[in-house]
Amino acid sequence: MHILIIGAAGMVGRKLTAALVAKRQVGGADIERLTLADVVAPEKPAGFAGPVETVAADLSTPGVAEKLVGSRPDLIFHLAAIVSGEAEADFDKGYRINLDGTRYLLEAIRQEGLKAGPYAPRVIFTSSIAVFGAPFPEAIGDEFFSTPLTSYGTQKAIGELLLNDYSRRGFLDGIGIRLPTITVRPGRPNLAASGFFSNILREPLSGKEAVLPVSRDVRHWFASPRAAVGFLLHAAELDSSRLGWRRTLSAPGLSATVGEEIEALHRAAGDKAVSLIREVPDETITRIVAGWPQNFAAKRAEALGFVAEKNFDEIIRAHIEDELGGKVGL
Amino acid sequence: MHILIIGAAGMVGRKLTAALVAKRQVGGADIERLTLADVVAPEKPAGFAGPVETVAADLSTPGVAEKLVGSRPDLIFHLAAIVSGEAEADFDKGYRINLDGTRYLLEAIRQEGLKAGPYAPRVIFTSSIAVFGAPFPEAIGDEFFSTPLTSYGTQKAIGELLLNDYSRRGFLDGIGIRLPTITVRPGRPNLAASGFFSNILREPLSGKEAVLPVSRDVRHWFASPRAAVGFLLHAAELDSSRLGWRRTLSAPGLSATVGEEIEALHRAAGDKAVSLIREVPDETITRIVAGWPQNFAAKRAEALGFVAEKNFDEIIRAHIEDELGGKVGL
Repeated sequence: MHILIIGAAGMVGRKLTAALVAKRQVGGADIERLTLADVVAPEKPAGFAGPVETVAADLSTPGVAEKLVGSRPDLIFHLAAIVSGEAEADFDKGYRINLDGTRYLLEAIRQEGLKAGPYAPRVIFTSSIAVFGAPFPEAIGDEFFSTPLTSYGTQKAIGELLLNDYSRRGFLDGIGIRLPTITVRPGRPNLAASGFFSNILREPLSGKEAVLPVSRDVRHWFASPRAAVGFLLHAAELDSSRLGWRRTLSAPGLSATVGEEIEALHRAAGDKAVSLIREVPDETITRIVAGWPQNFAAKRAEALGFVAEKNFDEIIRAHIEDELGGKVGL
Repeated sequence: MHILIIGAAGMVGRKLTAALVAKRQVGGADIERLTLADVVAPEKPAGFAGPVETVAADLSTPGVAEKLVGSRPDLIFHLAAIVSGEAEADFDKGYRINLDGTRYLLEAIRQEGLKAGPYAPRVIFTSSIAVFGAPFPEAIGDEFFSTPLTSYGTQKAIGELLLNDYSRRGFLDGIGIRLPTITVRPGRPNLAASGFFSNILREPLSGKEAVLPVSRDVRHWFASPRAAVGFLLHAAELDSSRLGWRRTLSAPGLSATVGEEIEALHRAAGDKAVSLIREVPDETITRIVAGWPQNFAAKRAEALGFVAEKNFDEIIRAHIEDELGGKVGL
């Protein structure tokens, strides 16, 4: 089996690559070959015996999708995207990369099939809970409509529709997964409006200060990086006929408040860790976060075997195991 | 006020043009100028005092949208589309006209504003109940999700998302209306799978035979051409701030069975008319129709003042008045 990962240099892409290398097979088929693409060349993973091609290319440049698809990968993960804040700040860039790039990929797959005989690879597309816009029901169900309040969410919702139609027409075998907010994100604090959800755990767990810009009763929807990779691997192996033509799923996750995050931090690392959180209310971030989903009833994905953490203790444990070598750095 | 109608040569476009000419104003502003565009040049309406420009052009040809928008119409009706059957048969053409054409229009409006100063016209977009795909709830509510089962429905759903995002960003002031199946369509029987809903009324009312390919208990969602034009005029005058950023509405309509259609025909035109319906079951059409919406709870549109017929007697009366000069041709 030949696997193509587009967006392989990102946080989820790197973890997915490592997980595939460790797993050695997908759905019973050996992984023989990897193609890793991103706007910067992804690193070659250690410990993979077969050929690995790394490609630095922008999916929204005409011709790039055709080239990536020309070698007929059996399984394609499409993780590449301009993030929410940037897609909102740069309207043209967001549409070019998130909409045109995705459409180029799907169309290149279709053209490959038209040109050189039957070809309908499994395509796993990472969508986002940003396809939903407030006001929300208490828990967003599997049949709630998409009325995004960002250009990013609009572009992801369009990607879902295209994935569905190209699947229905038999050009590919798509599954979309709407990821919860990934927490604890490794790395350094960034300026994303959602960054604090991770910062207030990751930084104190390493003995550093973090800023909390919203009140403790803010509720949001979470999964760990480990769970996110698990969703993608599960989607790769799922019998897609169980989805019918409703090819995108809201992944399961954890609905929790910032206060619950902090309580779990306290259980994991004590008073000292919690004292490293500085509460500095920020009106802009508070307003942005108020428009975000807080809770889902992800019954379809659960019934299909997707699994997420059940509490923040588990999310913190995954972070300590996967990023801190099993030890809290306090 | 300068009004642009794209798709003006179609059935709804012609009736809308006539209604605007008769109405003379929209939202209290006099209609001073009309631009009527379609792939074939629309006819100039009788009885309009101001300048009328008719344009034969394809919106999916680069440059056409810019030209149409360059004269800065205040109100734009975008009715142009490849219909469902053709978009399914010709994948490329459907995406080119229904998706690219719509995106070109919205983007041309944005570019016009960026280039030559503030410009955010009201844009009325005709969407379709084809954005929904079975299985359905008993009545499709205003928050039910879009999982279209046709490429046409996919393209319309994407148009809705773009209309929303371009409105939210302030580039235009969009309102989308999901039209029910328009019945009684004037003109001759055509090969559209939905054609029989109109044929079994229109033909007998003119003394001609019609074929019914499905059973009488088939239920569907209807509005007259007169009601459809009423939706578009109401949308043109609506205070769009009442919609928030959920800019597309399912129009109200009538949920009725084929049997109820025939009963209303009997009340309007008696035994002789009904005897002109020949029942010739068609498995293909029966299967296609089984995937179509049957009923809506269009509460938002009703609360916003959109009005449709309440029974088939009203729909038949509208047809007799608007198309048959008030007389049944039997």
